[in-house]
Amino acid sequence: MLRKVVLSEAFGRFSDTWSPKIVGDINDQQVKLAKFEGEFVWHHHDDEDELFLLVSGALRIELRDGSVQLSPGEFVVVPRGTEHRPVALPTAEVLLLEPATTLNTGSRPDDERTVGEPQRLDPV
Amino acid sequence: MLRKVVLSEAFGRFSDTWSPKIVGDINDQQVKLAKFEGEFVWHHHDDEDELFLLVSGALRIELRDGSVQLSPGEFVVVPRGTEHRPVALPTAEVLLLEPATTLNTGSRPDDERTVGEPQRLDPV
Repeated sequence: MLRKVVLSEAFGRFSDTWSPKIVGDINDQQVKLAKFEGEFVWHHHDDEDELFLLVSGALRIELRDGSVQLSPGEFVVVPRGTEHRPVALPTAEVLLLEPATTLNTGSRPDDERTVGEPQRLDPV
Repeated sequence: MLRKVVLSEAFGRFSDTWSPKIVGDINDQQVKLAKFEGEFVWHHHDDEDELFLLVSGALRIELRDGSVQLSPGEFVVVPRGTEHRPVALPTAEVLLLEPATTLNTGSRPDDERTVGEPQRLDPV
């Protein structure tokens, strides 16, 4: 039987920041939920586009040549190879879509916030 | 420069139902927005999982062995090969994520609501 994911309920089940949780598998991609707070590390993903859909809070996606600010209900796709830095203002709940292989810190695997194996939140 | 998609604005730019609009490309997948009204056709996709995230309205995803009802902020992933029928109660605004190759009516390509080449809504 199919089980749905209730975003507000799923975000209520964790509080750690910069640690994406897998909530869905679709083809070779994964839907992940993450809480952001303040600034992340500048990084890029060589071969992977990454979608950021803001669910709550405020989020700025900084690029080397500008930035995009998101309100809830807005998304951007950061193309592969593009250096970016997510900055929550001051916090954000974010739905991510990216390949299952994507490391959260991309080109900065030695960053202290690198998550090797994201936790999975099963539907309830 | 990166351009964001504002879901409410994008949904305001079309009114036709059962006709997904492409609003984002991510890896080999596409983000599409669609308006549903009433019942769709029973169908499946042989090789493609499909995500339905409800943005507004009410949506029931019927399966042969049950159904899942979605409120805004809830999503399901319908696995490949699974017969399903979306039913809006009575209307729904839906964010879809699926491979670029996915036909909206899947195994029912001769349905009157089949969309061969979805329109693209460019960011504004």
